[in-house]
Formats: sequence, structure tokens, C-alpha cells
Amino acid sequence: MSDRGHIYKSFDTELKALKHQLLSMGALVEAHITYATRAIVERDRDLANAVIEGDRLVNQRELAIDEQCIRMLALRQPAASDLRFIAAALKIVVDLERIGDIAVNMAERALSLCDEPPLNAPVDMARMANLSLRMLRDALDAFVDHDVARAESVLSADSEVDQLLVESIETLRGEMKKNPGSVNRALSTIFFAKHLERLADHATNVAEMVVFFVRGQDVRHTRRR
Amino acid sequence: MSDRGHIYKSFDTELKALKHQLLSMGALVEAHITYATRAIVERDRDLANAVIEGDRLVNQRELAIDEQCIRMLALRQPAASDLRFIAAALKIVVDLERIGDIAVNMAERALSLCDEPPLNAPVDMARMANLSLRMLRDALDAFVDHDVARAESVLSADSEVDQLLVESIETLRGEMKKNPGSVNRALSTIFFAKHLERLADHATNVAEMVVFFVRGQDVRHTRRR
Repeated sequence: MSDRGHIYKSFDTELKALKHQLLSMGALVEAHITYATRAIVERDRDLANAVIEGDRLVNQRELAIDEQCIRMLALRQPAASDLRFIAAALKIVVDLERIGDIAVNMAERALSLCDEPPLNAPVDMARMANLSLRMLRDALDAFVDHDVARAESVLSADSEVDQLLVESIETLRGEMKKNPGSVNRALSTIFFAKHLERLADHATNVAEMVVFFVRGQDVRHTRRR
Repeated sequence: MSDRGHIYKSFDTELKALKHQLLSMGALVEAHITYATRAIVERDRDLANAVIEGDRLVNQRELAIDEQCIRMLALRQPAASDLRFIAAALKIVVDLERIGDIAVNMAERALSLCDEPPLNAPVDMARMANLSLRMLRDALDAFVDHDVARAESVLSADSEVDQLLVESIETLRGEMKKNPGSVNRALSTIFFAKHLERLADHATNVAEMVVFFVRGQDVRHTRRR
């Protein structure tokens, strides 16, 4: 590090700032998913509205990160691994923004359910939400730390969420057949579970990006030096 | 164009090749969605398997486009509008790859339904599929042609798909309440419709990217000159 000139030090600062922006956007969409989940489970209209209004912030963060990436590409002309990191960042914010959209969809569903009695579903949605959110956190940490092992742990957790989803749908399908009066609520729960599955898919995509970008970097490294 | 030197002409050629790669990947995922739709509606196991096996090609295309973008960023150091185009391309292939995943999900569902009688649903899935696919084609054409008006037409078509989805779910929900024996098939149709809605969402995302990237380019243009 000590042999680097002023411009490189400053590039490192920008790269750190970019990582901070990504983690901060990740924390924001994580909060939105948590609020939206509580809004559905507890029939909380205020929390649902907060998520819907807050989505503007998520979109602003995506725009800011895109602009920061483009600025760094234009002014810094980064080489090899830094270039790949910035390219991956451009792709990963797409996932983060979509997770924000999922939170909005969940919040809108929460609003439409507020006048109905609490869900009382025979499936554990909070557990599925927590599992998916942990995957997201791990995937983002893996990205900023270039940590392939951690990214791979996210990939294996995805099948656990998929399994929970299959079981939930089976249970709810049975409910609907036995008791047609449960169709509305069972269907809502299925949609809810599907949202969480998509969240887990986005976390998986981020984790795959980490593997691709770190492995790709290694390949390039070998080729060029 | 005539005042450009050799390296710029060659950059234009690369840019054209990149656009061709994007359109070609778009055509591939479009074909996969079409096959998967037919596989579900006509209970065609072979078509479903073709989509599942063909997804490898979709992933290879994404990788190739990413590598092409990174190579152009590294070696060409493109300025302003070309840089934004390449950054947008990196983001848009994410949507194309996800559309490929949707086709695989649909094909897997088609396989699990192959032993059941044809859908015969009271909702028109083929219409929704066609509408969503037209949105995708228009969005990609708008991207390679930098055509904001066409991109905006995609944005307005999205509400039509959303409306179709709401109506379909309403119809199917009614079916399930009236006749518990229809739960399995109605639920499959709902999942099918949800896949098509997500396809339309991805097309919308591509269209939004076009507006962002062309408008952003204009803003930068104004600022810098």
C-alpha cells in the first residue's frame, strides 16, 4: 500500500465508500423486509405505509451507487480486480432494488389484509423471513470482503428456504381443500411465502456474483502476470 | 463518423457486437418462455426438458456479455454515453438471465403437471404471455436504439398485464371456493400467471433502464459541454 501514489490512495477511499454504500443499501432493504413481514403478521398499517413511502430512498440509493460506479469507471479507469468489483456492484444493486420492490409488494398486501383477522397460518413465516434475511446479509458481507466460502454457505442455505416453501405450500393447499372458507387467507400466505422465496433467490444471486467475480479475478490474475 | 480514427471504428464494431449479443440473448429467453408456456398449456414434456437443458446456454450468454463489457471498459476506456450504455448492459443482462430462470421454473411446473389433464383454465394465459413477451422485445429494441418513446410504451403496457393478473387471480380464487377439487389446478394457474407478471416486471425494468440511461446521458451531456 505504501508504494501507491496519491491517486491510488484516493481510489481506495472511493472503493471503501462504494462498499459502505452497498452495505447501507442492503441494511435499508433488510429493514423494509422486516417491517413488511411485521406489517403482514401483526396487521400494522403504519409499518406498511412506511415501507411503501420509504421505497423512494431505495431507488435513490440505487441511482447514487450507479452514478458512483460510472464516475469511478470514467475517472479512475480501474484495472482488473477493481474493475470487476465495480461491474459486480452495478449488477448487485439490481438485486437490492428488487428486494426493495418485494418489500413494497408485501406492504401493499399487508394493507389489503388489515381489516381481516390476523393470519394465524399453520406455517412459520417469520422463520422463513429470518432465514432469507440472514442469507442476504451473508451474501453482501461476502461481497465486500471477497469471501467465497461465505458466499458458498449462502448457496447451500437456499435449498433450505426452498424446502420450507414446498412444505408451506403443501400445508396450505391441504387447508384450502378441506375448508373453502380458508382460501383467501391461505392464498395470501402462499403469496407471502413466495415473496420470501424470491428474496432468498436474490441473496443467492448476490452470492453467485461473489463467486463469479472472485474466481474470475483469479483467472485473470493468472493470465496476466 | 469519418473523422474517427481506427481505434474508434473498431470500438463501434465492438459496440454493435455487444448490441447483437444482447438482442440474441433476448431472443433466446423469449423462445424459452414461449416453449415453457406451450409446455404447460399443451402438457409437452419434451419442450419442458428442452427449456431446462437450454438454460445452460442462457447462463453462458450472460457470462459472455459480462466479459465483453468488462473487456471494453478495460481496454477502451469509453467516455460518457458509451460508458453508460455498457453499464446499463451489465444491469440488463441480469434481467435477461432472470427471465431464463422464470422459463425454467415454468418448465419444471409443466413437468410436474404432465400427468394431469390439460389446464382448461377460465383465464387466457397465452394472451398474458404474448403481451409480456412483446414488452420484452420492445424494451430490448428500445435499449439498442436508445429509443425513449418506445421504452415508455413498455412502461404503460405493464399496468395492462397487472390488471390481467388481478382479474385472473380473482376468477381462480372464486373457482377454488366453489369447488375444492379445483384447488390444485387453480393454484398452478395462479403460479403460472405470477411467472408471467414477473416477466413483465423484468421487461419494465429494462425499459426503465433505457429511460435512465438516455436521460442520464442527456443530463451529463448538458453539464459537460
